[in-house]
Parts: sequence; structure tokens; C-alpha cells
Amino acid sequence: MPEPKSCKWFLDFLSPDEGHMHGIKTILFAKQTKYQQVEIMDTGSYGRCLVLDGKLQSSELDEFIYHEALVHPAMLSHPDPKRIFVVGGGEGATLREILRHKTVEHVLMVDIDQEVVESCKKHLPEWHKGSFDDPRVELKFLDARKYLEETKDRYDIIVIDISEPVEEGPAYLLYTREFYSLVQNRLTPNGLITLQAGSTALTSLTCLSAVYQTIKAVFPIVVPYQACIPSFGIPWGFVVASKFVDPRKISIEEINKTISKRIRGELRYYDGETHTGQFLLPKHIRQGIEKENRMIEDNHPLYTYH
Amino acid sequence: MPEPKSCKWFLDFLSPDEGHMHGIKTILFAKQTKYQQVEIMDTGSYGRCLVLDGKLQSSELDEFIYHEALVHPAMLSHPDPKRIFVVGGGEGATLREILRHKTVEHVLMVDIDQEVVESCKKHLPEWHKGSFDDPRVELKFLDARKYLEETKDRYDIIVIDISEPVEEGPAYLLYTREFYSLVQNRLTPNGLITLQAGSTALTSLTCLSAVYQTIKAVFPIVVPYQACIPSFGIPWGFVVASKFVDPRKISIEEINKTISKRIRGELRYYDGETHTGQFLLPKHIRQGIEKENRMIEDNHPLYTYH
Amino acid sequence: MPEPKSCKWFLDFLSPDEGHMHGIKTILFAKQTKYQQVEIMDTGSYGRCLVLDGKLQSSELDEFIYHEALVHPAMLSHPDPKRIFVVGGGEGATLREILRHKTVEHVLMVDIDQEVVESCKKHLPEWHKGSFDDPRVELKFLDARKYLEETKDRYDIIVIDISEPVEEGPAYLLYTREFYSLVQNRLTPNGLITLQAGSTALTSLTCLSAVYQTIKAVFPIVVPYQACIPSFGIPWGFVVASKFVDPRKISIEEINKTISKRIRGELRYYDGETHTGQFLLPKHIRQGIEKENRMIEDNHPLYTYH
Amino acid sequence: MPEPKSCKWFLDFLSPDEGHMHGIKTILFAKQTKYQQVEIMDTGSYGRCLVLDGKLQSSELDEFIYHEALVHPAMLSHPDPKRIFVVGGGEGATLREILRHKTVEHVLMVDIDQEVVESCKKHLPEWHKGSFDDPRVELKFLDARKYLEETKDRYDIIVIDISEPVEEGPAYLLYTREFYSLVQNRLTPNGLITLQAGSTALTSLTCLSAVYQTIKAVFPIVVPYQACIPSFGIPWGFVVASKFVDPRKISIEEINKTISKRIRGELRYYDGETHTGQFLLPKHIRQGIEKENRMIEDNHPLYTYH
Repeated sequence: MPEPKSCKWFLDFLSPDEGHMHGIKTILFAKQTKYQQVEIMDTGSYGRCLVLDGKLQSSELDEFIYHEALVHPAMLSHPDPKRIFVVGGGEGATLREILRHKTVEHVLMVDIDQEVVESCKKHLPEWHKGSFDDPRVELKFLDARKYLEETKDRYDIIVIDISEPVEEGPAYLLYTREFYSLVQNRLTPNGLITLQAGSTALTSLTCLSAVYQTIKAVFPIVVPYQACIPSFGIPWGFVVASKFVDPRKISIEEINKTISKRIRGELRYYDGETHTGQFLLPKHIRQGIEKENRMIEDNHPLYTYH
Repeated sequence: MPEPKSCKWFLDFLSPDEGHMHGIKTILFAKQTKYQQVEIMDTGSYGRCLVLDGKLQSSELDEFIYHEALVHPAMLSHPDPKRIFVVGGGEGATLREILRHKTVEHVLMVDIDQEVVESCKKHLPEWHKGSFDDPRVELKFLDARKYLEETKDRYDIIVIDISEPVEEGPAYLLYTREFYSLVQNRLTPNGLITLQAGSTALTSLTCLSAVYQTIKAVFPIVVPYQACIPSFGIPWGFVVASKFVDPRKISIEEINKTISKRIRGELRYYDGETHTGQFLLPKHIRQGIEKENRMIEDNHPLYTYH
Repeated sequence: MPEPKSCKWFLDFLSPDEGHMHGIKTILFAKQTKYQQVEIMDTGSYGRCLVLDGKLQSSELDEFIYHEALVHPAMLSHPDPKRIFVVGGGEGATLREILRHKTVEHVLMVDIDQEVVESCKKHLPEWHKGSFDDPRVELKFLDARKYLEETKDRYDIIVIDISEPVEEGPAYLLYTREFYSLVQNRLTPNGLITLQAGSTALTSLTCLSAVYQTIKAVFPIVVPYQACIPSFGIPWGFVVASKFVDPRKISIEEINKTISKRIRGELRYYDGETHTGQFLLPKHIRQGIEKENRMIEDNHPLYTYH
Repeated sequence: MPEPKSCKWFLDFLSPDEGHMHGIKTILFAKQTKYQQVEIMDTGSYGRCLVLDGKLQSSELDEFIYHEALVHPAMLSHPDPKRIFVVGGGEGATLREILRHKTVEHVLMVDIDQEVVESCKKHLPEWHKGSFDDPRVELKFLDARKYLEETKDRYDIIVIDISEPVEEGPAYLLYTREFYSLVQNRLTPNGLITLQAGSTALTSLTCLSAVYQTIKAVFPIVVPYQACIPSFGIPWGFVVASKFVDPRKISIEEINKTISKRIRGELRYYDGETHTGQFLLPKHIRQGIEKENRMIEDNHPLYTYH
């Protein structure tokens, strides 16, 4: 086995019986905010890392995979995405990927935890690359659900970039059938939503499956997909949904054409092949999420480890 | 974070700065053989696990992904695979997947470590499912390279199921240009080889890339592909190669038709969608392995951590 | 730093922020009994280890320290110990040390968990050395407190060899003022009690201090002492108490004389110097336990981590 | 077991099969100097910690035990210690304890690693408490052995406060018979030397035993003693030696009288009882170090793990 080099380790417990270990070089920031424990550390494995409540959120070396995988399937499937709503997205890298699309005119990002955003702004410049200062961006520190309940605005794309609803945390209210109904009402007709929804590992497929089934109760087109973000220690699932647009129907060539026409700079993870391949899930994952019969509702949360 | 449940942990170091942790329930077998440290343990994360030299080889819960991903892309791409050669494959699960193909008449498995095979036979019945006793199987405990150098036999499929050539271990002699030339000479005209070749994580793409470039020096058609085996803690890469057959050209429908015609029992991981999706690698992996310029040769091993 | 040799580790959490790690070689026994999780494992650090509820109880290499330190201060301070009562003591090593005293005529051991005792009998022969079969020993699987409430018998020495009352576990009812009153009533006039009472580390002195104060409410002579059992990862505290006998008043020479007259075989840890030295606690420990004002009562348990 | 609170852990490997774990709160300093890897971190277990080459050197909560145990046995045994020489002692806490003695007129501290001393000065104010600025202190960044070879000065007390000579590190040249001869020549007639010499755990008694035997080849009076510094995870050994003074012969009362007469401020660990108790080692430690026959010489280093 490789000889461990560090004497300081971040143990990212994925379940009570599984974890992923990262050698720590140094810790740049550690604080308990009103909502969560925030830590920013430099690791020998994946460079700088953002950790919330003991769980890795994204790492310097492979955050491009997570953020490109989260943003571009929905954005590239929309013919002309102008107005975007981001729920969460504290690192600012979701903003960064959205702003690459030349069509975008306005992005409203609503994150409940101002301290997380401020610490990312300061310590993760390679993530946001100045996106918070882009004139197209508006940033509010609010409960996103309450905001969506009160606004009359509509958006072309709604990106939900928050921790998955493990345990009974309050985040689960952004994963319920009632919330997705609300979100659907705030979309333009060709609009899409996209979100991360937990691991695709067969030992922890419950979350993705329940989220998938919940969204299916609201949207006619619901497409799960997968990306491997190595620092997560486990493959990861996402869902894109809409009323009319099916991202699976767009060919490799069309995606590549849209990218070269619309995107500023060069994507590292995403292109037509990535787009098409990510929807072709292994058989056991497709079967696993289809046979799930749980749905998440405001008064029916998901208990992962109970 | 989830509260850890176990007080006993298997730490699978993936590099000097990264590891994956499994809660241990019990240890069934632990022995230093002539070639390696063998351990068979029951974990709370993935059930029974085979560990060689401190590295997880396969786990009860997701070995089906590894073994279906290793065997079926080559087997299903061949019109009529009859004679199969397996290098390594101690668990017997590679045999199990090969034997599902009704076309198979003979499988020769050559593993250097009899003690590993015997302990798998005893402790991993769910892996081999009696395959060692199938009359089509012949088992030899020899150096596979030496055997291939001396035999005149030819095979339709050669499956190389051994540890990747990290560090300077002797296994690297089964990953060199000279070895692949030898293997190519022992294939029938429509023959294919398939092998696992290390992680696809961008932090450790060197091994897969070098193996890919090495095989390209010998075979005209070389196709890398990826599978997520969650227990590995990191996404995994494979290579299938041949003189004439390109597995990417076979459609979803054709794969599904061949499966229903030719396979005994039901596959859990593999079908047409899995087949097609696995070859559509993310952009950064495709670029990473294409730009590699190292090649592995008998007197030019690969040093991963030096 | 030394390069870790094992890939399997027992993590013995001493507190939510501290632990001791032992490389595991193999696991011989693991079972959830009616009362606790029992594990017997072979480690590279201290040989065979007994682990209850995730906490190391004793190890092959240094259990002699724990058991000699627990038994002999009280036994050697008594002029003629004949009848002994053991609460707990599942490994049988407390019996072993008691039985070395030629004066002993009868030992009654009462342990609530028959499965622990049976598994120690089988897997820890070096601990008990056949003591369970000594004709002087009587073994009952009962609640020791209930037994003492009902019996009319009196004992010269009562050894309490159970886990310390961390958290709200039921063991705390064997650490209360009410229990010590009961114990005192079952002693002969020159009788002594002895028990382990948790760490002497200044970060976790609460348990020992509270036990010490609780016993002081019942016994006039209460003597805390310390032993270093390296496998515990933290220094350990004990208490010996009696109505009339003060072990500190017995000289090095007297202890050595009693040992040579009364003990079968050779002690490894204990002699006159050990006896005298163990009572001379460092200043901060003496002060720490004296200033404690908590007492443990039946309806007033000790919460260590709350 | 206690539920682990931190997700970041310092693993202090004590041997290839044993370690002690501390939950990390944050890391204040991490640097590779010319001589060693220096890290200063805040832990949940013992507060701020100094770590050199992955090994804990001292912790905020219990460094008082280490430094009082290192300094006062020799200092209090000397009738009038005026001139003190310190080898190593980077934290400045050894200075602090020496300077408490009102008799002291001059302390020369020689540490090879200026960067360690500077970082301790900055980050460990509770350790040195301004001692570096005491007018009695002279500080040199040199090889202490070379300095002692060249100086003609003599000292009443020489304190050797460096890492033990594990592996083949250069520190072993400050643990050889030749070095102790040199040290002896630089002592005044009533002078004493004192040093830490590794663990007293029976699994790693080699170092203390070999150091003890080596010093016995040079000094007529050599007294080993033990202290429990909980953060070390293992009990610790020290040696005090001299030509004429035997610290064991000084009574509890005399030590307490000298303390009250000579020491500024209040000692937390040390007093007469601590003094007397620490020399009364358990039988197996006394026997273990007496039967050792290795000696450390310039061309005969000590290999602990080989």
C-alpha cells in the first residue's frame, strides 16, 4: 500500500460505515456559522477544499467536474437561457459556469448563509473567479423557499446547489414535492431545473431515488444523470427536469455546436460526449431509482440512516 | 456528519494523501502468501471484501459492477467467443461472468498465487458461484507471461485481471509493450483483450494513460472506458483492444439482443445503455490519456509515486 | 514518523476528541451480547485484546499491569484475606491474581454477562490460566448489586472490576453512594474494597474524582492510586478503601515480605516499590480529586461528556 | 464508545502498530525547516500542540507535566544551581521552569533549529511566558555537541530536551556514550544532567533502557524516572545523573522546603510527593532497563524499528 504522507487527516464519513480520507496540509478557515460548521483546508490529495458540517463540498482539483456537471446539462439544453435562479451555490463556482453562457442577462443567487459566501469569496478565488462582482449577478441572503413563494418573477433555469437532505436537517424543505411545485411555477415555459441529489452508490441510492420520484410527481420530463467527482469518494447523482425539454434528445454534435457558439472560455469536463454519456446510467442504477416508492413531502422527510 | 458506527476500520490508501475507509465487522482470513498479503474481511459498508497488500480488490456488494464491466464489453463485442484466457482473476468472479456466455467452450485461468485462489474458493462462494468446478474451466498456478511465451494456443478473448502496476512490483511485467505483443500473438483474428488499468481520477490518471499508450503501440483499436465501483473510493478505468473489432460501433439494441440470446441468468450492471455510456468518457479524461507520452516497457517500468 | 504497518485499525475513542489506535492483525470473536458489544482481536501493538462496546478492556502484553494493580494493593494490605468477592472481572485475570494468594479459601465472582465470560474462557487462556476451574472459585451470572442486597455473607476483600460509569449506562448503579454502603456492609471488619475508576488524565479526571468523593462519603480510609497501562493510551486510576486498614502505611519491606511468604509464582508489576510509588500521586491529580464536589447517587448519575 | 466530534484528526504514530489520535480544531503553522517538519495546531483534546516530524512534542494542557518533570528533579536536587545549559528546548518552557529557581544566574540554550524557536516564540506564548527575553538567558542556534566540544565553561545543570534517537536521525549523536562523556566534563562537581529518554511502555522500553545503560557507562549515579503526560498517549521516561548527588535520597519534606524557599510562582505537577513517587518505578520497568545490554555509541546507533 502507498505509505501515508500526512499525519493530519480529514475523515469525510459518507455513512456510519464508510469514509474518505484526505491528508491535510493546513486549515485556512474554521467557523461555526448560524447554520453550519464551515471549514476551508488545503489537502495533499485535491488541493483546497470546502467542508460543511464535516462533509466535503468541493475541491480545487475537481470542482470543475461538479460545477460543469451541475450547470451545463440544463443550460445547454435550453435554447436561450437569460434569467437564472440559483438556490445555494455558496462557492460562487455555479455562478462562474452560468456566467460563461453569453445568453445570460441576470442571475439571482439566494443563499441562506452569508458567512459561508463571505469565506468562499475570500478563500476560494479560483472557484468564483470574481463572479460575485459580475454586473449580471444579484446576491441575496435569504431563505430561498420563502423568496420563491413571494416573488412573481420567472426564470429560464433554476439551479438548486445545496447539501442533500440527509437526516432531518432543514435543507429537506428544499427537496420536497411542495418545493418542486413552487419551483415549477417560477419557470418560464421552456425552463429547466437542475440539482445534485446525492450518491449513486448502490449502498446509498435512497436519496437520489426519492428525489427522482418526488420530482416525477411534479415534472413530466425528469432525467437523472451521474458524474464521478473523485474527491467525493463515491459517484454522484444529479437530476434535470422540465415541462417540455428533454436533454437526452440533443445530439453530441448539437451540444458541441452550442458550446462553441455560446460559451466563453473552454470547458474542461463538458462537451457533447460527456453530455450524452452521463445520461446512459448503468442498469442497476436505472432500476434502483425506478423501483423506489418513497416521495419527500413537507411533512414526510427522508431519514437516510434510520 | 454521520456518526461512525464501527471502532475497527480498514484504511485503503489510494495514494500517500488519500484513502477510503470501511468499517470492519470481522476478519475471516489473513495470511502472507509467497506473493502478497491476503485478507478477507466482512465490512459494514460493502459486505465481504478481498484485500491484497492492503488494497481492496472487490467487495460483495459491488463486485458485480467490476466483473461485469471487465468481462462483457469484450465478450459481447466478439461474435462467437469460444476459447478464453484469464490472467489472474483469483476471486473466480471473472470466470463466473465468462461462463454465462453460452458460446464459451474452454476457459484457461492462470494465476500465480494458489493460496489466494484457494482462500477465495473457500471464503467467497458468492463471487465464484462454483465456477472453478465448471468442466469448461482449466486452472493453472503459473506465471501467465511465461505460459503465453511457451504455448502455441490461440484465444478469442484474453482477460487480464490483475493489480495495476503501481510501484516497482513484478506485476508490471504483465503491463508492458512486450507483454501486449505476446498477448496479441495469442489472439484469434477477431480476438479482443480486456483489462483493468487503474483509476480515472485526474489525480492518478498516469497509470491508465500509460497503459493506454502502451497498448496503442501494439493494437490498432484501443478503447478506454470507465466504471464506478463505489467500494473502490475512486472511479475506475478499463481498456479493451483488438485488431479488427471496435466495441463502440455496436448499438444499444445489438448489445441487448446479444445479451438476451447468449447470456445465462440476468446481468445486473451491463446492458446496451451501460455498454454505450461507458465509452463516452468525460472530456478531461479523454484529453488526459491522449496527451500522455509515457509507455511501459520491460526495462522501463512505471513509478506512480516517485 | 514511524510508517504505519497495518491497513486495519482499532480506534479506541477515549473522548470525542481523543483516541488510541491499534493495528489489527485479526479478529477472533465479535458479538453483540444482551449487554454489550464484545470483540476479541489480535493487534500488532499489544497482542490479543478484549474490547467491550468499542473500548479496550485489557491486552495480552500489559494486562498483568492492570490486574496486579487492581488486586494486590488491597489483598497485600489485608493480614489474612480468605473470602473474596469479585464484581465483574470477565477475563478471569482478576481471579488469577486473587488465587495466587495462599490465604484465599473462597472467591465468588458475579458477572452479569455470561457470554463475555464464556468467550474470555475460550479465547483468553493466557488471562485466566484456568482460574475458572479452581475449586476455590464460585461463578454466578447475576446482577451483583441485587446479589449483595440479598446475601448475608461477608467478605474480606471486594474487588469491583467493571467498566467505569461513563454516560448513562446501567453500570453506574455499581458506582453510587448507595452501592458502596451496601458493599461496606458486606465486608468483614478488616475488609477492603478496590476498584478501577477511570483515567487520571487531567482532561478526564471527573470520573475518578467523583468516585473518590462518593466512596469518601462511606469509608473513612479512601486511597486513590495510579498505574500506567500503556495499551489504554492514557494513565489509569484506582481506589482502595476500608474502615481500618491504610495501605499507605505498609512499608516497602513489609510488602516484599508478604509477597514472598504468601504469593504463588512471581509478580511482574507489583512489589514493595510499586506499592509505595503508586500512592504518591502527582500534585495536580491529588488537588484535582480533592476539590471535586460531585457525588454519584442512584438518582444522580455522572454524565462525562454532557 | 464516545462519538467522535471532529472530522479532522492528528494521528501521532507511536510505532508502526500504534498511534494516538487528537481531534484538530485548526492549524496555526506548518513548515518544513532545514531540520524538520514543524506544525502547531489547536486540538480539541489538549489545546495547542507542537508537532515535529509528525510527533507530538508538547501540548498546552499538559506541557506543565513534561517540563516540570524534566527540569525540577535535577534542579531541586542541586544545592545551589546557578549556571544552566539547555540542549534543545525549543518551546521555551524548559527555560520557564529553570528561571523559576531564584538561584539561577545564567542559562545558555543551544538549539539547532532557529525556525522552530521563532515559531514557538510566536505561537506558544503560554509555554515560554516571555522566558526568551529574561536577561539571564542566552540563546544560540548551533549544534550543541560542537559547542560543548569547544567551550571551556562548566555548568551546574545540563538539561537535554530533544527528540529521542529513534531511527537513524542525527539526534542520536546527542545520546551516545561519547556525548555523555563530553557533558560530564562540562559539569561542575555537584552538577547533574537530566533528559527525556522515550517511552516506558514495555513494548518500547529499548530506547530508555539503552540510554540508561549508556549513561551508566559514564556517570556513577544514574536515576531513571517516569511521568505520565496524557497527550503523549504512552507513559514517559527520564533520566537524571550526576557524579555525587542522588536525588532519591532527598526526602519529601526537604523537596517541599526547597520549593517554598527557592521557586517563584506555584508548581502544578511537582512537589515532594511527586519527587519521591516518580523514582519508585514499577518492577517490570526496573527489571527491563537493568537487563538491557545495548549501549549507544557514535558508531553504534540505536535502530528502534529494525
